[in-house]
Amino acid sequence: MKTNRTTVKRIPKRGAYDRETINAILDEAIVCHVGFVVDGQPYVIPTGYARVGEDLYIHGSAASRMLRELAKGVDVCVTVTLLDGLVLARSAFHHSMNYRSVVVLGKAELVTDADEKYAALKALTEHFVPGRWPEVRWPNELELKATSVLKLPITEASAKIRTGPPIDDDEDYAMDVWAGVLPLALTASEPFADPKLETATKLPDYVRKYGKR
Amino acid sequence: MKTNRTTVKRIPKRGAYDRETINAILDEAIVCHVGFVVDGQPYVIPTGYARVGEDLYIHGSAASRMLRELAKGVDVCVTVTLLDGLVLARSAFHHSMNYRSVVVLGKAELVTDADEKYAALKALTEHFVPGRWPEVRWPNELELKATSVLKLPITEASAKIRTGPPIDDDEDYAMDVWAGVLPLALTASEPFADPKLETATKLPDYVRKYGKR
Repeated sequence: MKTNRTTVKRIPKRGAYDRETINAILDEAIVCHVGFVVDGQPYVIPTGYARVGEDLYIHGSAASRMLRELAKGVDVCVTVTLLDGLVLARSAFHHSMNYRSVVVLGKAELVTDADEKYAALKALTEHFVPGRWPEVRWPNELELKATSVLKLPITEASAKIRTGPPIDDDEDYAMDVWAGVLPLALTASEPFADPKLETATKLPDYVRKYGKR
Repeated sequence: MKTNRTTVKRIPKRGAYDRETINAILDEAIVCHVGFVVDGQPYVIPTGYARVGEDLYIHGSAASRMLRELAKGVDVCVTVTLLDGLVLARSAFHHSMNYRSVVVLGKAELVTDADEKYAALKALTEHFVPGRWPEVRWPNELELKATSVLKLPITEASAKIRTGPPIDDDEDYAMDVWAGVLPLALTASEPFADPKLETATKLPDYVRKYGKR
């Protein structure tokens, strides 16, 4: 996983390269940022993704400019970031953030195998809302045709993690300034039903309890 | 703000190009993803930022590889994403996310003017934790030297926004499947004090009430 290009150079102790650490971050986040280059200009586009084994899958409209570009096998960088907290130090300089991020480098390829494509679409739905797939109408032929799925092997990747309280300069600890961590997390609030919900359909447990597992 | 490169091609109605919309998104998010190219390879790195007027500022160690690279005046893409909810449709195909994102293209430049650099560092602290700057120890000469600040003018930019309930195919509305939106937001939980907090310093209101303004 660790190559020169994915080695954390600044503050090396924050780097991690084992698959377990990387997978845990990839499985917790929902959105990644995909970087690619067109005519020398980098673009960074947010999109959902799912991990299956040692591969990342992203999907979108077959007409999507990004997906058509990535399908050419260009170099990509997929970055996933979980912001865990704001770190308030006594000095402005030592303010920081707690976070867990993963960077994956490589080349994506279009998934052409029908079974793999179907499995990836299921994995994407289940990654966003675990428990959702069995309930919904599954993709038909037309929808499958209109959807592109891309696969990026997780072979060159690294995680970067900061945790814990602020680290201040020795002489600043005596200051009468509150210091600590303000934890942040992406959390779900009360779901709201589609106004067009025609039936008295009950809110499923996997929605009601989202994120509380 | 709108150029061919920043025009939302897929689902054009989701695109927005006015400064008010773009600024509101930039001011709400905390972390951006910076895309840049080194030897043809795109990199996407998360980092904090602040907006001042019509410019974005990012900062970091003067030794940071990313900052040194960006200071060369290379093409960058800065993307900011707020994930607002998961959109649960009756069909797998029409599942979506509600989000507000901004893409800014351009070239960053190193801030060399001392006053502008200082103002940017203040803006960064106040963007992360409004109310924090007056309380902390401000940067000294050594810290200023160790910190690089980069400016990216917000001239070529676009927002992309999805809101509202799922849009299903007509024939799927009769299905007995719950559909709607599960709202998501980055929220703060109980702050925890630095174990080294030596004084009986009170938790400031701006921390206690964070995000509740």
